[in-house]
Order: sequence, then C-alpha cells, then structure tokens
Amino acid sequence: MNPGIVTLTTDFGLEGPYVGAMKGILLGLAPGVAMVDVCHSITPQNVLEGAFVLEGIVTAFPEGTVHLAVVDPGVGTPRRLLAVKAAGQWFVLPDNGLITGVARANGVEAVWEITNHRLARRVISPTFHGRDVLAPAAAHLLKGGPPSELGAETSKYIMLRNFEPTPTEHGCIGEVIFRDAFGNLITNIKDDQLADRDAGGWIVEVGGRRIEGVTRTYGESVPGSLIALLGSSGWVEVAVVNGDAGRLLSAGPGTTVWLRPKF
Amino acid sequence: MNPGIVTLTTDFGLEGPYVGAMKGILLGLAPGVAMVDVCHSITPQNVLEGAFVLEGIVTAFPEGTVHLAVVDPGVGTPRRLLAVKAAGQWFVLPDNGLITGVARANGVEAVWEITNHRLARRVISPTFHGRDVLAPAAAHLLKGGPPSELGAETSKYIMLRNFEPTPTEHGCIGEVIFRDAFGNLITNIKDDQLADRDAGGWIVEVGGRRIEGVTRTYGESVPGSLIALLGSSGWVEVAVVNGDAGRLLSAGPGTTVWLRPKF
Amino acid sequence: MNPGIVTLTTDFGLEGPYVGAMKGILLGLAPGVAMVDVCHSITPQNVLEGAFVLEGIVTAFPEGTVHLAVVDPGVGTPRRLLAVKAAGQWFVLPDNGLITGVARANGVEAVWEITNHRLARRVISPTFHGRDVLAPAAAHLLKGGPPSELGAETSKYIMLRNFEPTPTEHGCIGEVIFRDAFGNLITNIKDDQLADRDAGGWIVEVGGRRIEGVTRTYGESVPGSLIALLGSSGWVEVAVVNGDAGRLLSAGPGTTVWLRPKF
Repeated sequence: MNPGIVTLTTDFGLEGPYVGAMKGILLGLAPGVAMVDVCHSITPQNVLEGAFVLEGIVTAFPEGTVHLAVVDPGVGTPRRLLAVKAAGQWFVLPDNGLITGVARANGVEAVWEITNHRLARRVISPTFHGRDVLAPAAAHLLKGGPPSELGAETSKYIMLRNFEPTPTEHGCIGEVIFRDAFGNLITNIKDDQLADRDAGGWIVEVGGRRIEGVTRTYGESVPGSLIALLGSSGWVEVAVVNGDAGRLLSAGPGTTVWLRPKF
Repeated sequence: MNPGIVTLTTDFGLEGPYVGAMKGILLGLAPGVAMVDVCHSITPQNVLEGAFVLEGIVTAFPEGTVHLAVVDPGVGTPRRLLAVKAAGQWFVLPDNGLITGVARANGVEAVWEITNHRLARRVISPTFHGRDVLAPAAAHLLKGGPPSELGAETSKYIMLRNFEPTPTEHGCIGEVIFRDAFGNLITNIKDDQLADRDAGGWIVEVGGRRIEGVTRTYGESVPGSLIALLGSSGWVEVAVVNGDAGRLLSAGPGTTVWLRPKF
Repeated sequence: MNPGIVTLTTDFGLEGPYVGAMKGILLGLAPGVAMVDVCHSITPQNVLEGAFVLEGIVTAFPEGTVHLAVVDPGVGTPRRLLAVKAAGQWFVLPDNGLITGVARANGVEAVWEITNHRLARRVISPTFHGRDVLAPAAAHLLKGGPPSELGAETSKYIMLRNFEPTPTEHGCIGEVIFRDAFGNLITNIKDDQLADRDAGGWIVEVGGRRIEGVTRTYGESVPGSLIALLGSSGWVEVAVVNGDAGRLLSAGPGTTVWLRPKF
C-alpha cells in the first residue's frame, strides 16, 4: 500500500519544539506516512502568504495527499477548523482564508468542520491546536477515515479578498504577496489578467519604477536589469536578473503593483 | 514491521553539509527509518535551549523513538556520550545537561555510556562525533540492538541547575529560556510552580513590566496586550497578543522573570 | 526492496513553495522514496558553496543514492542539465560547476546530458527546471531507469577553477568557501596540501591574523583562542574555540587565506 503523504506548512519557525511535536503526533497515529516539510517560515500570522504557498504546491502533489497548514492568529478564539477537499487532495487548516489560493485555482469539492474531539488528543492546549486537533485530524484522513467522522459538512469557508488584485479600466492594482530567497517579488497578479493582449504589451509599475513587457525567463535580459516575468506557477513576478529586486526597490509583501496596458 | 523513528535536534544550522552527512549515515545503517527534523537552529552551543526543545517534543512521540541530539560545545574534549532511556524512548546525546528537561519531567530509566568504537565509523573525526559516533549508535538502537553493546551502564549524568527557577518565599525567580518565531518568551517556570493558588492570583514581572494573572489562551485578551499564559507544554510564557513580546521588552534567553503572589 | 534515497540541495531558501513543489513531484513519481533535505540555504546562486556541500555529504550516503542539486543562475538560458555518476551515486544538476567538489574527490564514472523532455513534466516552466525537468529525471533514476533514457552520454562537464587554491612556492593561496552556523571559516585548502610537513609546521594567515600550526580538535586550545584545524571532511578551517571566527575576523566566503610553511 502507498502509505500516504502529508505536507506541513506553518508559521512556527524552524526553532523550538513546535514543528517536531506536530510531527511526532502524525507519525504516532499514521506510522509509515511520508512527511513533507513545505515551509515553516511563513511570516508569523501572515495568512495571505500561507495561502500563496499552498496554491504553489498543490499541482505538484498526487491525489489523496493531505496538506496540514497552520497559520492561525485566532488560535484560542472561537474560529472554526476545517477539512477541505480540493483538487483531489485534503487540506486541514483553520478557517481564516488559508484555503483561498487553492480554492480560487481549483474550486472546492466539499468542506467539513472539525468538531469531533474524540479524535483529538486527550488534553487540548488552547494555544496549540495544530498539534492537538489538526494533526490527529490529518492522521485520520491519511488512514482513510471518512471526513464525516471529523464533524458536519459545511458550505461556508472564508475567502480572502486581497488575494486578488483590484481591476481597473484596462488593467489592475495588485500587491506583492511574497519575497523569495533571491529577492524576487511575487505579486498577486496572475496570467489570466494578461489574457487581453500580448505579454509584451503590458507595463508593470512598482516602487516608482516602470517595467515594459512581461517576459518568460530571466535569460532573455542582461544581468542587473529589472524585469517583470511570468513565474513558474503563473504569477507575475518582479525580478533583477542575477540580483535582488526586493532590495533594489525596498519592496516586499504589501507593496503596491500596477498593471497597465502599453498604449 | 514499523521501521522506527529517529528525530534530529542540533545546533548545526540549516546551512552546510553537517546535517545532511548525519542523515546519510543514519539511512545507510538503518534503511527505511522515518527521519524527523525537530530543529537544527538551536542557538550555537546553547545546551539549555536544546534541553527545553527535547522536553517539548517527548510526549508527542511514540514509544521506542530514538532522539539524536547534538549540542556539543565539548566535542574533542573528554566529555562522555550517552544513550539514555526515558519515557519509553531513547536519547543519544553528549553528557552535558542536554537530557535535563526530559529527565526532570519523565525520570530516567537507565543510562549507558557510549564507548564501543567498533559500532562507530572507521575513522572518527575529533570534531564531528554527531556523524561518526552518535548517528551509528542511534542506528544501532533503531535496529533493536541492545544498549549494552554501546558501552557500560552508568548511573551518572549531568543535570543543569539553571533549568529550574530559584524558589523565593512565596514564588520564584526564573529566566527566559527560549524566544520563539512569534516573539513569545518561554520561561523556565512550569505549571507546578503555580499550584499554590489560582492562576489569576500570580504576578509575572519581566523587563520592567508587571503582568497580573496567568491566563490560558491568547484569545482572552485584546490584541496588543502583554500577557502571561500557560503554554502548550506547561511552561509560563510572556506574550503580546498578535504581537512580539521579545521586541516590546527587549528580552530573550537569559532575561530574568519574577513570579510573585498577588496580595 | 530498499525504496531508494534522494537528497535535496538548493538555494531556494526555506520560505515559499519551491522546495515543497519539487518534493511533491518526487513523491508522486517515486512513491516510498526516502527524501533527505541536505540544505536549502545555499547563498543564492553561489555554485561554489553548493559544490562544497555536495562534497561534504557524499561519503556519508550509501551506493545508489540520488542527489538532486539546484543552484542554477543560468536557468532559462541554454546551459546543460546533467546526470553524473560518481562514487557509486547519482548527481542530477545543472552543468555549471556544481559537481566540482564531488568530481575532484571521487572522480567521475560517467555523465549523461538530460535532454529527453518526454520524461519531464508536460509543461516546463522556463524558470523552474528543478521541479519540471530535474526532479522527474531524479525519479527516473530512483526507479532504476537507465540513464541513457535521459539523453546522450557526454564527456564534458564544467569544473570550477576557484574550488582549488593557487599553489605558491612552499604553500598556497586559498579562500574561505563557507562560514558555518558557529562562525567557523571553512577554506578550500584540503589535507593533501599539508602533506609536505607536520601539521604543526604550517602558518595560516587570514584577515590580518597569523595562526601557528594546524590542530586536530577544538579541545586542544583554550576557549577564545583563534585556531586553524583540520575539519571533519578534510578541509582546513579557521575557528575561535567556543567563539565566532567569522565575526572576529570580519571574514566570510571569498576572504583570502594564505598557507605558508613555518621556517
């Protein structure tokens, strides 16, 4: 039997015992599972960034994968916990918009609210539902347990509005959603926003700079030049070839980005 | 057969070949083992922080798990290497106090000194016992090898004194032991220190600030407020709701924390 | 059957979806594989550092291991992608010198150029060959697929010249190649450069400081002293015992290091 795959995406950081504790619960309840660290460096409590990361990995994983995602500023308040089925995979996460990217790109097949505490750890810490409620729920799904045992089916889940850019007459106003290790600025503007005209027919404006045309690869431009390109998951990115766009533009998550047609 | 679980906790950092090399030895000697990264970002040579992390994960892992922990300022000097049985699990580590948290919380069942170099790698680097001695010892235990083959049983192991706060007439003086990715300050004061009176009846003083009462969850207080709460592993933490207590108080590992009764 | 081992070494950083996406492809194509994170914190586009890390892990892994390494400033330009057999193991990486350390230490058994796009993902992003071409190639080898199906055998591959120090009349001029989490400075000077005379008979000069003799372990010197020692993989390192040599000397990758005989 394929033992199943569970991925982990959190803002716990790479220090301390938190990630390790969650892994212990998963391995104890679902022995033999393949556990995949996606990212534990989500900016603390930045749900938008978590939603971006989840969307970025989903097409790479096989059907049946369980994604456990914990970016949860509301832990300890009465926010809901969900098991979402989308793209043939499972997402176990708080109901705070973390599912937005996955849901927008793939639609949602069904949603269950996780309320059955008999599946959780015996003592539930009010500050660590990732370990005590979500990890056991993920293990339940990994072992092929029916989602209906987690709680009632529901049709409600929160979608973040700022995950999508605001349309303007001929383009849109978006924002930087993620700055990667190379200093590339990934925006919330996707390829479908460019459908109107040839990619070369757009202007991207960010940090007071104006970039003509959206290219497909770093290699088309000379090192040091500031470019806009269509990234590997369909997002418009702003980059400096072999350089650091974030530093050049003093830009990062939240920085406004304009997309305008060239006239 | 359940192939066994080994966890890794080190101060090697996430750069360079050190962690990878240790993993290669483990997988070569114990094929099929489930390898769990707990944390490789222990502050270099901070044994106290390593002891805190180990205590924080132990209850999450199933019986028989082998924990390989390397925070080892004494590598190359004649300090001892140990295999410790505690909480039905194994701890393979240098004898410098790393076991303190686990031992205090769970007691110790038995201890062996690792001296049998026939189980180690053929050439032992004097600066990398984690790879050359401890990883092979962990693999030996993972495969069900008897601990007595590692070396002689011993009753001695080092316990750190500053892992516990100093009692005062009505409370105690402790210190911050770990600052997490959210800026929460985890102290070495545990729930048993609060047993005397209701949690609301205590004062926590840190960084010149006085906090009334120890709460159970972030959600009870308004965002931005400074609180003391009982964390997910039973430690008293100082936090700012949806904020960064470490930055607010300019505090981190070593900062003094007073626990006093409210009169 | 031993399910095979694949290691990952990249400069993708630990944020974002990039590493996770690559892992998803690997697990989907080669279920049950043991996936080992070596390091994702290579300084962006620093091929030299990547080459150092690969050399540092190779002797720790068993025969047949597949090492997937992506430090790839040329992605999107017409650089070649390779599958290299060396030390009984596989290396799947761009042809930009990443193989230098492994090749110098172990020789190379054979090299194939990866050109068969039928093994790649259906849509190949011009900026993410790690996910779309290299990960599927690694999975092919993990499943025992013949390397000749990846593309034609070739005898050419790039070797970095600055991976080796420049010989002088009685010693050599090298450079710092890596600064680890402890602040130790690992140089590109290897033990074979010291063969001429006793290790105590050398002078190491770095950052305006002169160190007499190359020792074998930190433990031989008093805390705080600046030493040169032969590290766990045979490289000469400059360290401060229980301190941070990089900070003391304001030195890091690229800093010049002289090796001279003592007269």
